[in-house]
Amino acid sequence: MPLGYPQRAMSTSFLEKLRSSAAKNRSWLCVGLDPDPERLPEPLRDRPLLEALERFLRAIVEATYDLVCAYKPNSAFYEALGPEGLALLRRLVREIVPGRIPVILDAKRGDVASTARLYARAAFDVVGADAVTVSPYLGFDAVEPFLRYGDRGVFLLCRTSNPGAREFQDLPCDGGPLYQRVAERARAWRAQSRAELGLVAGATYPEELAVVRGIVGEETLLLVPGVGAQGGDLERAARAAANAQGENAILVAARSVLYASGQRDFAEAARREAERLRASIQRALA
Amino acid sequence: MPLGYPQRAMSTSFLEKLRSSAAKNRSWLCVGLDPDPERLPEPLRDRPLLEALERFLRAIVEATYDLVCAYKPNSAFYEALGPEGLALLRRLVREIVPGRIPVILDAKRGDVASTARLYARAAFDVVGADAVTVSPYLGFDAVEPFLRYGDRGVFLLCRTSNPGAREFQDLPCDGGPLYQRVAERARAWRAQSRAELGLVAGATYPEELAVVRGIVGEETLLLVPGVGAQGGDLERAARAAANAQGENAILVAARSVLYASGQRDFAEAARREAERLRASIQRALA
Repeated sequence: MPLGYPQRAMSTSFLEKLRSSAAKNRSWLCVGLDPDPERLPEPLRDRPLLEALERFLRAIVEATYDLVCAYKPNSAFYEALGPEGLALLRRLVREIVPGRIPVILDAKRGDVASTARLYARAAFDVVGADAVTVSPYLGFDAVEPFLRYGDRGVFLLCRTSNPGAREFQDLPCDGGPLYQRVAERARAWRAQSRAELGLVAGATYPEELAVVRGIVGEETLLLVPGVGAQGGDLERAARAAANAQGENAILVAARSVLYASGQRDFAEAARREAERLRASIQRALA
Repeated sequence: MPLGYPQRAMSTSFLEKLRSSAAKNRSWLCVGLDPDPERLPEPLRDRPLLEALERFLRAIVEATYDLVCAYKPNSAFYEALGPEGLALLRRLVREIVPGRIPVILDAKRGDVASTARLYARAAFDVVGADAVTVSPYLGFDAVEPFLRYGDRGVFLLCRTSNPGAREFQDLPCDGGPLYQRVAERARAWRAQSRAELGLVAGATYPEELAVVRGIVGEETLLLVPGVGAQGGDLERAARAAANAQGENAILVAARSVLYASGQRDFAEAARREAERLRASIQRALA
């Protein structure tokens, strides 16, 4: 790992870290760190799996950390590797990602309050993440234990990027689709808790993204997955998600960056793709 | 651990295991295996934490395995302990619980299809669970990777046991509350996939439980948490959740069994409480 990486500074809040990395790197791009054993670059394949994945993640982070506002590992990729995968996730967050770049743990957790407290501990204290994604289905008491940390970010699922999102999220509830009810409640919860509560809304549905931005106002962060491999139009999504100042929209690309090349040049290719995406976002928000 | 525990038999489907343990033990009681370091019985407290928790779980399982139809560990309790906690969860499922008693991993996962596939792998192949709980918010494509295993059980959150459940689950959607829409979709998904898709509905809301049973028909399994510490009325919940034959309702108690005593007699006290709960359920369903 490069010299001079500071330790993960947990005394700095998620929001401060995010604003600082977005400004310093002139970037609202977030790279998803979702290591897939089946897509490891060819030169790493002869190593033991966990070692290969760690080298892969380290190379991707070293190649992109000055181009992003945040990283977003998805917990499933690590859980599928067993307890050693969770140890890798913890090292990724605490040692590999530079301490000044915030890490959003994509975990989509949601459970009753006494259990949510433990999920918050796992994400924030064990893994060491700066922010986490959570599910709205159980209501406020399932979200509140995450908000109580105060200095960490919480992103509530609102309009997800997958095709099945329509099934329940678009159901007309009380005169409008369910995802709009979720956005309205999130706005109220945010005001009430004074914590950094943002929303997840997929790049694959730019019209709904714009509606969500309209509901939550200018200050709320939107986390926007689905760029690249999932087919979302990056520039359109960036314009729909950002506020009037061209800020507060975190645009996530994972596979298109991580697997830009499967050969010896995988890290350079990842950097080129991240540069291209960052420039697209800058253009869209100019 | 008692001699003669068979290895976890993954060749037997969740449903076969459940029917067999429910019949053999004359029980629809499921014990939640949620180890809380702060509530460890006094005689175990001088040991290293992970060792103490493992001894605790082993003693609870040994004291209750002939009284239950299933066990339900909640993933959060293990995740909060770090990677070693996940290793404990795997040992619990693969070595401590007798192979003929099904284990329902309460994980409430929900993510886009390519990620849900990894959560299914983590639950079924890594941990070795027979069944898992999942969240409906992302729609069918987030659930389908779990159903595709065919022989495992999947329980979709419908009406949860917490106070905040009302917030979204009771929103009027298309003429009835959202949780009823979820139950209707689950019924259709179950028919379409021919997999063992059940629903989670909390003991704390017996009227809604009865509505859910009415929607899904006789064959669908209902997983009913919230008995005991969460305040649900066990006999009322059992009658509302079971089908006309007094079957297919899995009633979950966790804290009231695990922490029945904090002293040297904790395992005997857990057994007595499990016997009492089993008898209550038998009475209600007679």
